[in-house]
Amino acid sequence: MSAATEKFLQSADLGAAIVAALDEVLGTRKTDLHAPVFAGNEWVYLKDCLDSTFVSSVGAYVDRFERDLAEFTGSAHAVAVVNGTAALHVALLLAGVEQGDEVLVPALTFAATANAVSYCGAIPHFIDSDDRTLGVDPAALDRWLSFKAEKTGGRIVNRDTGRVIRAIVTMHTFGHPCDMDGLLSVARKYGLTIVEDAAESLGSYYQGRHTGTFGLLGTLSFNGNKTLTTGGGGAILTNDAELARRAKFITTTAKRPHKWEYVHDEVGFNYRMPNLNAALGCAQLEQLPGFLQSKRALHQKYAKAFAGLDAVELTREPAGCSSNYWLQALKLQNIDMQLRDSILEQTNAAGYMTRPVWKLMHGLRQFGDCPRAPLDVAERLEKTLINIPSGAGLA
Amino acid sequence: MSAATEKFLQSADLGAAIVAALDEVLGTRKTDLHAPVFAGNEWVYLKDCLDSTFVSSVGAYVDRFERDLAEFTGSAHAVAVVNGTAALHVALLLAGVEQGDEVLVPALTFAATANAVSYCGAIPHFIDSDDRTLGVDPAALDRWLSFKAEKTGGRIVNRDTGRVIRAIVTMHTFGHPCDMDGLLSVARKYGLTIVEDAAESLGSYYQGRHTGTFGLLGTLSFNGNKTLTTGGGGAILTNDAELARRAKFITTTAKRPHKWEYVHDEVGFNYRMPNLNAALGCAQLEQLPGFLQSKRALHQKYAKAFAGLDAVELTREPAGCSSNYWLQALKLQNIDMQLRDSILEQTNAAGYMTRPVWKLMHGLRQFGDCPRAPLDVAERLEKTLINIPSGAGLA
Repeated sequence: MSAATEKFLQSADLGAAIVAALDEVLGTRKTDLHAPVFAGNEWVYLKDCLDSTFVSSVGAYVDRFERDLAEFTGSAHAVAVVNGTAALHVALLLAGVEQGDEVLVPALTFAATANAVSYCGAIPHFIDSDDRTLGVDPAALDRWLSFKAEKTGGRIVNRDTGRVIRAIVTMHTFGHPCDMDGLLSVARKYGLTIVEDAAESLGSYYQGRHTGTFGLLGTLSFNGNKTLTTGGGGAILTNDAELARRAKFITTTAKRPHKWEYVHDEVGFNYRMPNLNAALGCAQLEQLPGFLQSKRALHQKYAKAFAGLDAVELTREPAGCSSNYWLQALKLQNIDMQLRDSILEQTNAAGYMTRPVWKLMHGLRQFGDCPRAPLDVAERLEKTLINIPSGAGLA
Repeated sequence: MSAATEKFLQSADLGAAIVAALDEVLGTRKTDLHAPVFAGNEWVYLKDCLDSTFVSSVGAYVDRFERDLAEFTGSAHAVAVVNGTAALHVALLLAGVEQGDEVLVPALTFAATANAVSYCGAIPHFIDSDDRTLGVDPAALDRWLSFKAEKTGGRIVNRDTGRVIRAIVTMHTFGHPCDMDGLLSVARKYGLTIVEDAAESLGSYYQGRHTGTFGLLGTLSFNGNKTLTTGGGGAILTNDAELARRAKFITTTAKRPHKWEYVHDEVGFNYRMPNLNAALGCAQLEQLPGFLQSKRALHQKYAKAFAGLDAVELTREPAGCSSNYWLQALKLQNIDMQLRDSILEQTNAAGYMTRPVWKLMHGLRQFGDCPRAPLDVAERLEKTLINIPSGAGLA
């Protein structure tokens, strides 16, 4: 801890103390929350892609990116798609989510998680988080389902709404893995399918196994703010060969292979990742181990800089897990919205992009009437989490 | 006409005669149906985009591409999105298409047109084509609606199904403009909204006005096989400022502007075009006038080469229109599936990619039960059209 930070610690001005700690780690650079780093073969592969003229929905980089992703994550199959939202939409459809079903979704997530449920004509049913992992709390979920769920004709039905509860979407918040053993156990107990929203957790491991490979299907995102980027992009992970085949088929307009005929035998989607974007992805994936090292190093610097600030806690990987530290976050020890907002004001004014976590899903107008469990932990997290600059280039 | 073509004309082997005509125009190059040409600022803009680190869902190239598209097409507004299918999905939603509605769609189109209707929870209702334009036939549509449609409570209802008929999707097949005066007149008569699927017709004009700007909304595609490409991409055109604002809003996750808060107040879509793809689009759009000239020159060469072959007719722009000649097509004068397939075999074997037009939508399993008008012209076109190599690099 620097002398400057020490000084602010003695003052009542937590915002200024946080700015001082950020100064200590980041210098006085203007920083985004997460900027990409292009320091590898990006140029080479993009140029090669242009020269080949295969920039669009088929091409060697798409095939390679899928192979490289499967290898990196240890998933038997990876299907590249146009973004993480599309990946989640298709994963839910392949998990059997149907119109009128309910899908258990953390209240603490980005809107895409709940939107993807809506695209299937299903209803998100919001569940609480674990303060330690920031992901779904298996114990709280088990308690909730023991009250609300009943088995009827081999299906789990919500006693209140009468609707089938089809699946659980787990989301690895800020890259920190959920308690997958706990969640798999609850899923087995109630006969629910798990779809892992691993949009934020490429490079994060639970007990040595990559996130997104525990559920029937997992999904990744390569948006510009993610650990690696393809401009826009996503992927579906699965160990099931038939699901992988189906995922590829329905994300590529459901066209049957034929030397010239155009037969599409179900309603498919145009969710293909262009080869141009996959070329960027291949170059980024080569650098992923380095990005992960840098992000871990940044975390260690933050841990040192914020060590003396008792009023905030730096979020860290849960025990037994290795996090990609996609987004670093401070957790205020007390709920004080005025204080939180003044910290956001001060840090942004100092040139450091900071933001609160997402608004909880049931607080969004379109999801206000959806079923929900008690959300005490998520509601506390919503009021106390602040993300701070986290890019791989900042370490 | 070359001596070689003349010779084959005397023979009964139409396939060989077509190969000879293709040889005359294309030499003996192996050719795709439509390969992109990258001969401008593609590399400069892609490099600039990488250097800026703004490769993803916001960026200067997205803004510029939207401005450039609006200027080129004469549309008041253009909203760039992830592909043409997404553009159509959102255009239909903005045209007021609701779950359970019917939408009039040509049977002769690519599957995306009908899929987009399905994404809205609506039902495509297939209508016939005009042999001259290859697009929706306004006179046939008027006759059909005069039997099938009735006005009930200010809405047009299908007498058979009782469902509201909400809109007409016109599609400018192979880049040839539909009879927009005729279609606008039918739309007015029945109080129907027109959405123009101009995926294939960037650079095509009806009576001097760009296709996609006649309907309430129009949509473009920049897939790899289109006149210009962004890898994957599309756009929504509209002259209505409020619809343009709504299009931008719901394609960008419906997030309300705020300095840090994440408020999404309706179910939005992640349909943003990445800046990387828009950079490619800006470079391609600069070359569009040249591409259009080349494609017209290719048409003229084909017209000369095929002039003596009475058994096939080269499709051409309708009177009063300027077509982009996106895809060149031969129309067989007689229905003979064995002959058609042997022409496809012979031309593909000779290294020229050719294909029949798409299977009609009501022939696809998932649309087999949808309502449909008599489709005599479309059914004839399905059996007689053959696309031949059409890229701007071939002239």
